[in-house]
Amino acid sequence: MQGKQGQKARMSNQHPSSRDAAERLDQMAPLAHAAASFMLPDGLIYLDGHSLGPSSVLAQAAVEKATKQEWADGLIRSWNDADWINLPRTVGAKLARLMGAADEDVIVCDSVSINLYKLAAAALDLVANKRILVEADEFPTDQYMAQGLCQQRGAVFERIESGSAADALKAGGVLLKSVVNYRTAVIEDIAALEQVAERHGALIIWDLSHATGCVDLNLRADGARLATGCTYKYLNGGPGAPAFVYAREDMASQMQTPLPGWFGHADPFAFEGDYRPVPGAARFAAGTPGVLSLRALDGALDLFEGISVDQLSQKARALGDVCLWWAEQFGLAAISPGVGERRGGHVSLLHEDGYAVVQAMIAENIIPDFREPDAMRFGFSPLYVRFVDVWEAMETLQDILHTRRWDQPQFKVQAAVT
Amino acid sequence: MQGKQGQKARMSNQHPSSRDAAERLDQMAPLAHAAASFMLPDGLIYLDGHSLGPSSVLAQAAVEKATKQEWADGLIRSWNDADWINLPRTVGAKLARLMGAADEDVIVCDSVSINLYKLAAAALDLVANKRILVEADEFPTDQYMAQGLCQQRGAVFERIESGSAADALKAGGVLLKSVVNYRTAVIEDIAALEQVAERHGALIIWDLSHATGCVDLNLRADGARLATGCTYKYLNGGPGAPAFVYAREDMASQMQTPLPGWFGHADPFAFEGDYRPVPGAARFAAGTPGVLSLRALDGALDLFEGISVDQLSQKARALGDVCLWWAEQFGLAAISPGVGERRGGHVSLLHEDGYAVVQAMIAENIIPDFREPDAMRFGFSPLYVRFVDVWEAMETLQDILHTRRWDQPQFKVQAAVT
Repeated sequence: MQGKQGQKARMSNQHPSSRDAAERLDQMAPLAHAAASFMLPDGLIYLDGHSLGPSSVLAQAAVEKATKQEWADGLIRSWNDADWINLPRTVGAKLARLMGAADEDVIVCDSVSINLYKLAAAALDLVANKRILVEADEFPTDQYMAQGLCQQRGAVFERIESGSAADALKAGGVLLKSVVNYRTAVIEDIAALEQVAERHGALIIWDLSHATGCVDLNLRADGARLATGCTYKYLNGGPGAPAFVYAREDMASQMQTPLPGWFGHADPFAFEGDYRPVPGAARFAAGTPGVLSLRALDGALDLFEGISVDQLSQKARALGDVCLWWAEQFGLAAISPGVGERRGGHVSLLHEDGYAVVQAMIAENIIPDFREPDAMRFGFSPLYVRFVDVWEAMETLQDILHTRRWDQPQFKVQAAVT
Repeated sequence: MQGKQGQKARMSNQHPSSRDAAERLDQMAPLAHAAASFMLPDGLIYLDGHSLGPSSVLAQAAVEKATKQEWADGLIRSWNDADWINLPRTVGAKLARLMGAADEDVIVCDSVSINLYKLAAAALDLVANKRILVEADEFPTDQYMAQGLCQQRGAVFERIESGSAADALKAGGVLLKSVVNYRTAVIEDIAALEQVAERHGALIIWDLSHATGCVDLNLRADGARLATGCTYKYLNGGPGAPAFVYAREDMASQMQTPLPGWFGHADPFAFEGDYRPVPGAARFAAGTPGVLSLRALDGALDLFEGISVDQLSQKARALGDVCLWWAEQFGLAAISPGVGERRGGHVSLLHEDGYAVVQAMIAENIIPDFREPDAMRFGFSPLYVRFVDVWEAMETLQDILHTRRWDQPQFKVQAAVT
């Protein structure tokens, strides 16, 4: 921890004081080489990687190979010859490194919603107090799945106050908890909460959606037992890329998935009438995996080769620090942790007309996003966002606010997806 | 029915009596134009479309556009601009036509395993007799999911004798039933079984995996209320392409999905704390859809434009008839319905060394597949398999059997996926 604090301080001194200084910082930045693989349109500043990461040469090459060689030429043979059958595990192993997990702890499958259900249902079997806790500001899908499951199983669904998880865990049960809050980017202390949970016979299912690829996760060391997360944000796996399940070996071996599909069977092609789970986290696989989407993720993950989660986290925070420093200059309130503090990959700034402000930025080729009712989210995905991008984005934002350019009817029309 | 019987008779008279006759039949065949879009390797005879359909120009173009334009250039904006958000519905509507369903009855999502679970759980709520029936020779994943669900819900799992569904339904409950049996290609009479079910307060969840794209389905007319199926077989949607849920409107509106993810919410981007299902089958959507895989399916389905399910079914059966005629010549037993009979898209021939025989065919560039313990399956996907392909495949099979070319050690090594 001492070391991390020291690095934090160092990073927060790096605020560039001019556009030129930002450019110099980019030239020094250790991750600059990865940026070259991303296929961002010319002139676009993309600060929405916390929602959908961009495409890359590696992801596209993997999809093209999967489509043109593996599928078109290999056909059914590719389940063996291109090792499609093991893709959920091999891609899981690539992910494991970015989470501080053992390879066999991670399996790629389905969506976060469905994986939360699997883990929560299996976890309910293991706890004495049959209840599921979700903090009030948790991502909605997590809340829906927990509610639905409790209804079906006669368990108790408890929506608890934000920040009260440590207390609530003392009565046992299952907690669904995001490591990085999707609105604020506050990072939860995994180790501390796991200690409380272990002491009181509770289980935590971590949602890593906004964490993997931008936070220095160390799941095994922190005692995390169960987790899931998506791969289309900071991992750049593509729109709707498959999610993953993390289940520490000792946990997985005693868990029973509520969705026992043939891909989690010990011998799927024996076509046995009864279900026998495969050892480890792989039992949480269910139906046939979507190979094309899985290959995009497979390719995208190669961009992380040789890069440590500490580097990712430091870069994301340093970029966020620049954003926060600017926001302070023109008096925009933030709900994210401040300069130099531990924080996820994005920064949320408040504005009561935030939706229109974001639309005005998009009209000027800068893409952040907006979450109801008033949060403008600026995502600082560490592999491709540059200091100079943050500089320009914030300069533009300041100008848009100053001139009230956002105050136009066309910026207030809500789109289907915001 | 009169009409169909008449057509059947006509088709069964079309057996070519020579390779030349087969070629002439191909020239006359009304679906020949669709074959041009498929990207089958030169010289390969692919009779495994009942397991994985081949790639096509249209599917590849759709994936390429999705990867290079929609994802790379459009980025997050494509949820609106490329209408990604509605893809599960718009692709569902394309599927609806091939099933005799209304557009809003069909939503594309998740895998068959998971969709079976959703439908079975929701159906259990609606029946008085809380039991799930599965015939003993049903596809294994269907059995696992039913077993798992019953365990969780305190419902009764009953594995009933093959062919006894109509009797068993008289005591109510939920039946999972394939329209086309994956081993035999026997087609179930949907209308007849639905009548029994309705009379006795039972619900049937049809598994259309081996039916859609090769059987003249007419779900609404036949009174089918609930169904799911995969899209990577006769629909050629790509490896692990997403599955679908069919829920007739009157059923959907009273059903509660056990997996209430945000994509089935009435207003997913309002980020409400409580779940409110969207009207219709779309409520069975759960997490974020895998767009790249979905686009491949989207493109592949365009190949069916202007082609009726009657044409598909007739062509598949006519091809199967040729296979059966040959098998009879050299005394190979079939477990599929005979020449001129109603049948799914494949024909299963029995051989105690079937695995090795199939491997020997693959070594000669002809791909059928094998299902334990002794079934060699020959798939006659109607859009691209030609009469001359069947002719050549069967001629080669006869020769392999005659010379015992299959009886070599290398053909007996079991691969991971069979």
